[in-house]
Amino acid sequence: MVLEGGEGVGKTTQAAALADRLEAAGIGAVAIREPGGDPFAEAGRALLLGDLPREPETEVLLFNALRAQVLIAHVAPALARGDWVISDRNRLSTIAYQGYGHGLDLGWTRSVCATAADLCPPDLELVLHVDEATSVARRDARGVTDRFERLDADFHRRVVAGYLTEAERAGVTVIDATDPVDIVGEAVWRELEPLLPR
Amino acid sequence: MVLEGGEGVGKTTQAAALADRLEAAGIGAVAIREPGGDPFAEAGRALLLGDLPREPETEVLLFNALRAQVLIAHVAPALARGDWVISDRNRLSTIAYQGYGHGLDLGWTRSVCATAADLCPPDLELVLHVDEATSVARRDARGVTDRFERLDADFHRRVVAGYLTEAERAGVTVIDATDPVDIVGEAVWRELEPLLPR
Repeated sequence: MVLEGGEGVGKTTQAAALADRLEAAGIGAVAIREPGGDPFAEAGRALLLGDLPREPETEVLLFNALRAQVLIAHVAPALARGDWVISDRNRLSTIAYQGYGHGLDLGWTRSVCATAADLCPPDLELVLHVDEATSVARRDARGVTDRFERLDADFHRRVVAGYLTEAERAGVTVIDATDPVDIVGEAVWRELEPLLPR
Repeated sequence: MVLEGGEGVGKTTQAAALADRLEAAGIGAVAIREPGGDPFAEAGRALLLGDLPREPETEVLLFNALRAQVLIAHVAPALARGDWVISDRNRLSTIAYQGYGHGLDLGWTRSVCATAADLCPPDLELVLHVDEATSVARRDARGVTDRFERLDADFHRRVVAGYLTEAERAGVTVIDATDPVDIVGEAVWRELEPLLPR
């Protein structure tokens, strides 16, 4: 399954809580955040987060290359062992950030993202959403950390609108993540529980 | 336009000769070999040619990321200036090496390669082809230089067969490049000339 959403929506917190809850229910769980500890993907991510000029289309293809690496080398083997994998971000993030944020052709962006996602399609995608004031407050609280977080407020507004539009388009559930962590965790669990083995 | 083909078919020699001939005809010409001198693409290529383990699907997406960078940042502006661009390799190389060589799903590989190629489609693609003995002799003469050239004879046979199959499928002309350089150059020129401005 995949947890999606912009900056400060609580993806990492929810992924950790969900992994604990799955383990407590006797289900092996692995929380993966791109680049997932894979050395090749880590090296590629360092290139993406560096300062060399690049086109947004290049970023779309490169993010998907690193995603393919993590999906094939780490996610698929974990699923084959019977574990649940909780991914922090996947294709919707690339469509929201590069597609909507940088104003790329959305059909093109979706088609590139489909090529990587199709290698190991998720059972469930959820978008966590918070209002802008909450997102900014949470980002400020932890400090700006990378080149994507440094982009301006208009960029982040386009990204958040992109998540909502794409979620609607793809039939992906959007969860209000402004609520306290436990309440959000319950909402996530309600979506996941029907998919778990009895 | 794009010159394609496996190891030792003479792409670089023909690209240089063709650029000279175009310049002599009063047409600006730029010969580009991926990663085309672009700093971001050079860094990505270093990652591809390095030793970190990676999946062949990752390579397909990463090659296309670097191709997109060169196409948008260097090829499209040259074409907009009215120059001809002669590219040493493009999508057919990825389909032949990663698709046929590593035995990937060809439909998947073609669809990834289409996403980058569609950003700036070539006016003309040509495949240069030599028999295996000629390819091996030329490779031996210049020494083995990178991780793709080090792959075994069976791999290179699949790659060469892949070029021929894809050329047939896509209606791309195959030129016998076993002939002397000048004869091959004439064959290339015959394909290009009808497309030049009068």
